[in-house]
Amino acid sequence: MAVPQFKEIRRSYGFDEVAIVPGRVTINPEQTDMSMSIGDLKFDIPVMASAMDAIVSPSFAIQMGKKGGIAVLNLEGLWTRYQDAEDKLAEVAETPLEQATALLQSLYTAPIQEELVAQRVHEIKAGNVKCAVAVTPQRAKRFAPIAVEAGADMLVVQSTVTTAKHISKSYHGLVFSELVEQIKIPVVVGNCVGYDVALELMENGIQGLLVGIGPGAACTSREVVGIGVPQVTATMDCAAAREEYLHRTGRYVSVITDGGIRTGGDVCKSFVAGADGVMIGTPFAQAAEAPGRGHNWGMATPDPALPRGTRISVGIKGTLQEVLFGPSSRTDGTMNLTGALRACMGMVGAFNLRELQQTELIYAPDIKAEGKIYQIAQGR
Amino acid sequence: MAVPQFKEIRRSYGFDEVAIVPGRVTINPEQTDMSMSIGDLKFDIPVMASAMDAIVSPSFAIQMGKKGGIAVLNLEGLWTRYQDAEDKLAEVAETPLEQATALLQSLYTAPIQEELVAQRVHEIKAGNVKCAVAVTPQRAKRFAPIAVEAGADMLVVQSTVTTAKHISKSYHGLVFSELVEQIKIPVVVGNCVGYDVALELMENGIQGLLVGIGPGAACTSREVVGIGVPQVTATMDCAAAREEYLHRTGRYVSVITDGGIRTGGDVCKSFVAGADGVMIGTPFAQAAEAPGRGHNWGMATPDPALPRGTRISVGIKGTLQEVLFGPSSRTDGTMNLTGALRACMGMVGAFNLRELQQTELIYAPDIKAEGKIYQIAQGR
Amino acid sequence: MAVPQFKEIRRSYGFDEVAIVPGRVTINPEQTDMSMSIGDLKFDIPVMASAMDAIVSPSFAIQMGKKGGIAVLNLEGLWTRYQDAEDKLAEVAETPLEQATALLQSLYTAPIQEELVAQRVHEIKAGNVKCAVAVTPQRAKRFAPIAVEAGADMLVVQSTVTTAKHISKSYHGLVFSELVEQIKIPVVVGNCVGYDVALELMENGIQGLLVGIGPGAACTSREVVGIGVPQVTATMDCAAAREEYLHRTGRYVSVITDGGIRTGGDVCKSFVAGADGVMIGTPFAQAAEAPGRGHNWGMATPDPALPRGTRISVGIKGTLQEVLFGPSSRTDGTMNLTGALRACMGMVGAFNLRELQQTELIYAPDIKAEGKIYQIAQGR
Amino acid sequence: MAVPQFKEIRRSYGFDEVAIVPGRVTINPEQTDMSMSIGDLKFDIPVMASAMDAIVSPSFAIQMGKKGGIAVLNLEGLWTRYQDAEDKLAEVAETPLEQATALLQSLYTAPIQEELVAQRVHEIKAGNVKCAVAVTPQRAKRFAPIAVEAGADMLVVQSTVTTAKHISKSYHGLVFSELVEQIKIPVVVGNCVGYDVALELMENGIQGLLVGIGPGAACTSREVVGIGVPQVTATMDCAAAREEYLHRTGRYVSVITDGGIRTGGDVCKSFVAGADGVMIGTPFAQAAEAPGRGHNWGMATPDPALPRGTRISVGIKGTLQEVLFGPSSRTDGTMNLTGALRACMGMVGAFNLRELQQTELIYAPDIKAEGKIYQIAQGR
Repeated sequence: MAVPQFKEIRRSYGFDEVAIVPGRVTINPEQTDMSMSIGDLKFDIPVMASAMDAIVSPSFAIQMGKKGGIAVLNLEGLWTRYQDAEDKLAEVAETPLEQATALLQSLYTAPIQEELVAQRVHEIKAGNVKCAVAVTPQRAKRFAPIAVEAGADMLVVQSTVTTAKHISKSYHGLVFSELVEQIKIPVVVGNCVGYDVALELMENGIQGLLVGIGPGAACTSREVVGIGVPQVTATMDCAAAREEYLHRTGRYVSVITDGGIRTGGDVCKSFVAGADGVMIGTPFAQAAEAPGRGHNWGMATPDPALPRGTRISVGIKGTLQEVLFGPSSRTDGTMNLTGALRACMGMVGAFNLRELQQTELIYAPDIKAEGKIYQIAQGR
Repeated sequence: MAVPQFKEIRRSYGFDEVAIVPGRVTINPEQTDMSMSIGDLKFDIPVMASAMDAIVSPSFAIQMGKKGGIAVLNLEGLWTRYQDAEDKLAEVAETPLEQATALLQSLYTAPIQEELVAQRVHEIKAGNVKCAVAVTPQRAKRFAPIAVEAGADMLVVQSTVTTAKHISKSYHGLVFSELVEQIKIPVVVGNCVGYDVALELMENGIQGLLVGIGPGAACTSREVVGIGVPQVTATMDCAAAREEYLHRTGRYVSVITDGGIRTGGDVCKSFVAGADGVMIGTPFAQAAEAPGRGHNWGMATPDPALPRGTRISVGIKGTLQEVLFGPSSRTDGTMNLTGALRACMGMVGAFNLRELQQTELIYAPDIKAEGKIYQIAQGR
Repeated sequence: MAVPQFKEIRRSYGFDEVAIVPGRVTINPEQTDMSMSIGDLKFDIPVMASAMDAIVSPSFAIQMGKKGGIAVLNLEGLWTRYQDAEDKLAEVAETPLEQATALLQSLYTAPIQEELVAQRVHEIKAGNVKCAVAVTPQRAKRFAPIAVEAGADMLVVQSTVTTAKHISKSYHGLVFSELVEQIKIPVVVGNCVGYDVALELMENGIQGLLVGIGPGAACTSREVVGIGVPQVTATMDCAAAREEYLHRTGRYVSVITDGGIRTGGDVCKSFVAGADGVMIGTPFAQAAEAPGRGHNWGMATPDPALPRGTRISVGIKGTLQEVLFGPSSRTDGTMNLTGALRACMGMVGAFNLRELQQTELIYAPDIKAEGKIYQIAQGR
Repeated sequence: MAVPQFKEIRRSYGFDEVAIVPGRVTINPEQTDMSMSIGDLKFDIPVMASAMDAIVSPSFAIQMGKKGGIAVLNLEGLWTRYQDAEDKLAEVAETPLEQATALLQSLYTAPIQEELVAQRVHEIKAGNVKCAVAVTPQRAKRFAPIAVEAGADMLVVQSTVTTAKHISKSYHGLVFSELVEQIKIPVVVGNCVGYDVALELMENGIQGLLVGIGPGAACTSREVVGIGVPQVTATMDCAAAREEYLHRTGRYVSVITDGGIRTGGDVCKSFVAGADGVMIGTPFAQAAEAPGRGHNWGMATPDPALPRGTRISVGIKGTLQEVLFGPSSRTDGTMNLTGALRACMGMVGAFNLRELQQTELIYAPDIKAEGKIYQIAQGR
């Protein structure tokens, strides 16, 4: 073809299109170390719970911390808008689906109360665990100091699409390097995709990066605005930036795959694609301890003009203990996520997550896709 | 393989196979400018309503104009065949599906009345908005002067497949360059696909190009005659021709993606693929103001011998205001199309549509396809 | 990858994965010439009806001939095993699906009667049309002379997989060049796929080639023995062989795409892939005149030990006239197949089939696949 | 793209994505030789029955041996844990699906009894057939000598992912070269995928290799731990290793495709991908003689903490004789597997399996996938 091309279209990959290929060595699962570090914080399991109102309450955060991971409390959700957030969550759960988006749109118009920000941090810290909180870039300068003052251990600055350079008239350019300088706890920023964006954010001194735009089950960004990058490619690109930045500066910034993870297989693939940790939504929303009572919704769902996402019914599949560590009689990969990760590490001979990142991935679209169509046809 | 190849088969892309990748900068949606120009006409929003009888009545055209876009009235449809077109449209809506194609075949055999051509233009102009009308190449010489005389502001010359050179015995070679010369209003021609065809049409002096063969929901050209090019590739090829022509001549011809657009995501992807505007069918057929009363059909449906397409039921999803600007509680991307476009421009850091055309596209087939299969399985 | 590869795997294409791309010129459909030649025989329309018992009876063959095409009578099916074949066909149609394969297995054990071979040819010739008959390579030497003697105009030698060199103990090597020499009517051989095989068969002096292994709706060769090549690739490879052979010898051998064609779109794509004619099964089985009474089955279905294929219900969609020439209110592409071909030729500017072969094909998998899944979900 | 890539992602192929392309010669099926050798053992048909409790009982093994193939008895399943294994198998068959995984988890906690290991071998040998038994690497040193002593003819050492180097604290490094040295019967090892792993295992002196990780119908390894390689690619890679090893040493190690085979087409494709034999599960579980009574489950299903797979209902489709040799009225490829293989060999002109390995494969995703979606939609 001699015809000029308007632009290149690169191939990308999602979880369902790839599979992990075992290598030349196998080891015993018990010999594996799956700990994760973010800045100077260390966690026994490389799992974060998403900063979504249906997933993380103060009490959920305590239980997650005790199990070795960390849950992130959304500082701009129902927990800081209402003293009696549990009542509101119950109301959402009881509302018919047709009215759920409208109810969420209405509930999120109540103002955020600064005293509740501090109170929620205190509640979590009272459980003797690390406390992580999430804010949007627009409100980071206002709420971050309050949370740090109250004892928060990690700050997550999160919006749908985050870059180092936001050009705006309305809030005066949050500069991540200043924020990192100002507060003394690790800062995790996201969500982003892309090698260049990731590298630029790392150069601002942050300790962690949330990877993923558009992949979550509760998110319809791709339908509404057309934006989204499948998680395997998104993670690989950001991991490539981490390696380049590490090579240049000697500093290691943790890359956390956030969104679209539903099974142990997805967890394992995230690490093979280069992740240092995973942030999980739906599987935790399915835990009995989650405040959503078998439901979930994204942070863009309550948008008054352009709601992206909806309240989805996820059901309750087991306890948090079972989701993370089993035992379980479920065989679809949604339970015992860390057991799955250990089993995978044994099968590919990886003693730790850094070694797991070296394993081969293959493009193998069929098997799982079939399974999905089958599940759909079965009404599951 | 040493085996000779009969011909090359190029890869092409449709809306559902690609996604938009954010870049290094984000901006505030309010800062974006989404205006569109066609020739010397300028519109606040880059959206045209398709010249289909179920979508554009004179009254719909007025409302569309008042909202900043432009609707195109079909001069060879029911509105110029019947004084009481509304009655016929009601009849179509009330007919059972099995008899709908036959009824449409019969209704479209009534002759077009020249006085109705002028009358419909007057009706629209009485609303104080720009008036756009559509004719086929076969009838362009006959009706275009009448419409221009009556005050039309834009002429759309449209057939299923349009080229600069039609070899025919029956109507004597419409020469686009002569038509452009003769009438003084902007001429938009289509539909076409392909770099060469687009370039050749531009060289005839036209002001706009409609891109798209076979993609619309109400069209079955691909099943019936095997012809069709997915819209992302079709738009990219024509955008490449526009750039080449601009480079050569300094004149900018607008490329308008026409057909197959159902969501805000599709709108956004059209621009990233290189479009200057979008022509939309189904989403407007779903507006309460549309004369189809929740139905739609294509211009090839009433063909007496080889009907291509059928009357499809699209339902009524909201008002025209809601379709274009929201607010909405629907989260599937079918409402607030311009809000979606603005949100997308913010996320990728594009101040105007010309900048949006520079954004990266990725081939990412899975996420949305899953969603569709799911919706189908759910009977939606 | 430094890993050695056991073998190359080439990409192939089926009808549903490609679409036709219009070019720089359009013409009027009435100006097109769609005639087909095979040897010294010429036909007004490039369409053959498959040599299947549920499709071609002597009376069907007469009607097909009168409409400008040609139907092939199977000389090894029910029509030459039973004087009262119509009774047997009625019995098959009335048998429940579970017992249909067993009944077919039993019916096809009756011996072929030589006098019926001659009688059936006489019946067709009595209709004043060209008569085409099909035999397997194993029985070609025995039945071909009888059919020629009785007045047949074209001999089709057909088996699942045909090559120029069959190594066998049981029947003594049918040599196609000898057969061609011996009988004076055009010989069409198939089915085959592949450039090398096609070239070798052409070198034996045959006049036509049937292309296609495994694609038909009534055939499950691909499930049972894993063999099959999608029709677009199969046709392109054989067309490449035809061009090479034409270049070398100046003799033109017709390439006929046989199997898997269900719509006008498939017909058009066959020619763009390089075919000179199409052989059609299912759409003719759906004609009111077909002896299968709304059913169809393949020639491998009655195999006593390894039945490949099954009796499928295809329904009755219209008359043979409507299938071939319309008019029709059906919009799914299954009616007015020659009208579709003419429309396509007009849209791509092809005056004859040789020009249609020059049109561009694009790989565009989505649109139609969606349609199919949708149809399946709707129970159609 | 100048962006650095974190890792390469290679394309892989499963059974449903490829098809076999006939070549220049065809032969008569009766002339083909489909015998298989493993070490000094020779079998009339190249088919092994999987070492699964629902498939192989001592009595099934005898019948399989008499028909020319070989069935492998699992030495760590119900047959060596319970004297009255038939009772337990009946209990599993009668338990509702919801409780099946839990029951299996419980049944497999009973200890393996060494005297039953010897007894089961004696039972099979009493049938005057070759006896093959399977052990895991962990228990190979303990049970292999007992089985050999009792008269076993072939030892299969099998685990989900097997490599030549397992690094472990719990069982002291089974060294395959020592095992091969120690016992004098052929050793078959698996499962593995990958050129390097296969080559390394061959260098340990084994006689056969089981290829396949994650493809079986009763296995959900891919969902749970993300690991799995489609069988066509897995077989091709191991066949490439076999050729390299043969070239280097002159010794031929048999490659056996194990898992995911459901039809005659899959059997044929395995050989064309390079296999010397196939190990089959589901089709044998569907035989009336199988002890699973129409059910099947994988070896990882009873895992107490991370069950991978579930008891699936496969139904009873015919006798073992019919599955292997027909005759049959089923046309979906699940019956007469060796008849299918012979038919395929005839169509591609392969006199033996070594020649069949030379046949061309094509990437042709559509036809069969459609079929599957259709079957799913039909609830089959």
